[in-house]
Amino acid sequence: MKLLEDRILRDGVLKEGGIVKVDSFLNHQMDIGLINELGREFYRLFGKDGITKILTVEASGIGIACITAQYFGVPVVFAKKSESKNLDGDIYTAKVVSYTKGKEYTIRVEKKFISPDDRILIIDDFLAKGKAFFGLKDIVDQAGATLCGVGICIEKGFQEGGRLIREMGVHLESLAVVELDEKGNIYFK
Amino acid sequence: MKLLEDRILRDGVLKEGGIVKVDSFLNHQMDIGLINELGREFYRLFGKDGITKILTVEASGIGIACITAQYFGVPVVFAKKSESKNLDGDIYTAKVVSYTKGKEYTIRVEKKFISPDDRILIIDDFLAKGKAFFGLKDIVDQAGATLCGVGICIEKGFQEGGRLIREMGVHLESLAVVELDEKGNIYFK
Repeated sequence: MKLLEDRILRDGVLKEGGIVKVDSFLNHQMDIGLINELGREFYRLFGKDGITKILTVEASGIGIACITAQYFGVPVVFAKKSESKNLDGDIYTAKVVSYTKGKEYTIRVEKKFISPDDRILIIDDFLAKGKAFFGLKDIVDQAGATLCGVGICIEKGFQEGGRLIREMGVHLESLAVVELDEKGNIYFK
Repeated sequence: MKLLEDRILRDGVLKEGGIVKVDSFLNHQMDIGLINELGREFYRLFGKDGITKILTVEASGIGIACITAQYFGVPVVFAKKSESKNLDGDIYTAKVVSYTKGKEYTIRVEKKFISPDDRILIIDDFLAKGKAFFGLKDIVDQAGATLCGVGICIEKGFQEGGRLIREMGVHLESLAVVELDEKGNIYFK
């Protein structure tokens, strides 16, 4: 999606270790006008799939999922990362290793919020090694729901997550796929 | 706001310790149509205040802040709770004690995202003891920005946060103020 690629080139910052900082518009400060366009594009890509629920994970996916959900007219469910007194029902859990935070954590979704009838679209800001995706997919599978697709704002093409997900036959759409050339500069596929 | 009060009465669950669970529509599963109406109401209440930025904190405030920001046409900045490799600039920090999680944590905002010219509206899902508010206000003050108001979806009227904030002269608007009668049942002021 050219709008997003142009913004990454203009405002994104490449850090050591292949981390692409887009915190001026996507995941710390959020440009809501831009994110609305991303949501519209996700709807163009998945709008005919009969989606009943958008699933994401704390924290930076939530805003993008909410804006996107307006186009689909469906609720958002976000998986929680932390223990909370407020999570006390029957719960689906899955383990996720965070690449940017360097630790493993458990994500949780109350069982009553995903049913076997649900047709799920997973939305997230980033896809790198795919760890968050595999945790969310695990929860969708436990619930017996249908995973219809995965919408990602920025995929790191130089990491394996996208390839692994596509090899599973899952419908993955990344609005921008960032690649690194041999000098470590960004380009797009 | 009657729409929200009715929804709390219909779908909210009161737990021990004064915890009001609204996770079927506000902070785990999110009813985007409802949250759009909350955002519209925040705009009615604060729309003439020249807001330049909406500030919230991970995680459950983010979606509400993003939907609300559409009415204001301004960016959202969300304070981060966890250490991350992605936060490496000059940073404002503040300490917050979480009531529902029973621990203290540090919230962080990169300095470049709040300037002295900014007119800030804080948005959050819940107000109980006011700890998240005081952390966010601390960051607004450090930045030399103007705190124009605080928009809360659900205030627990039986805890002290609302009173403390109003006594400071801050413009606080809570769309529903939950009270408990002597039998522990919910009513609204």
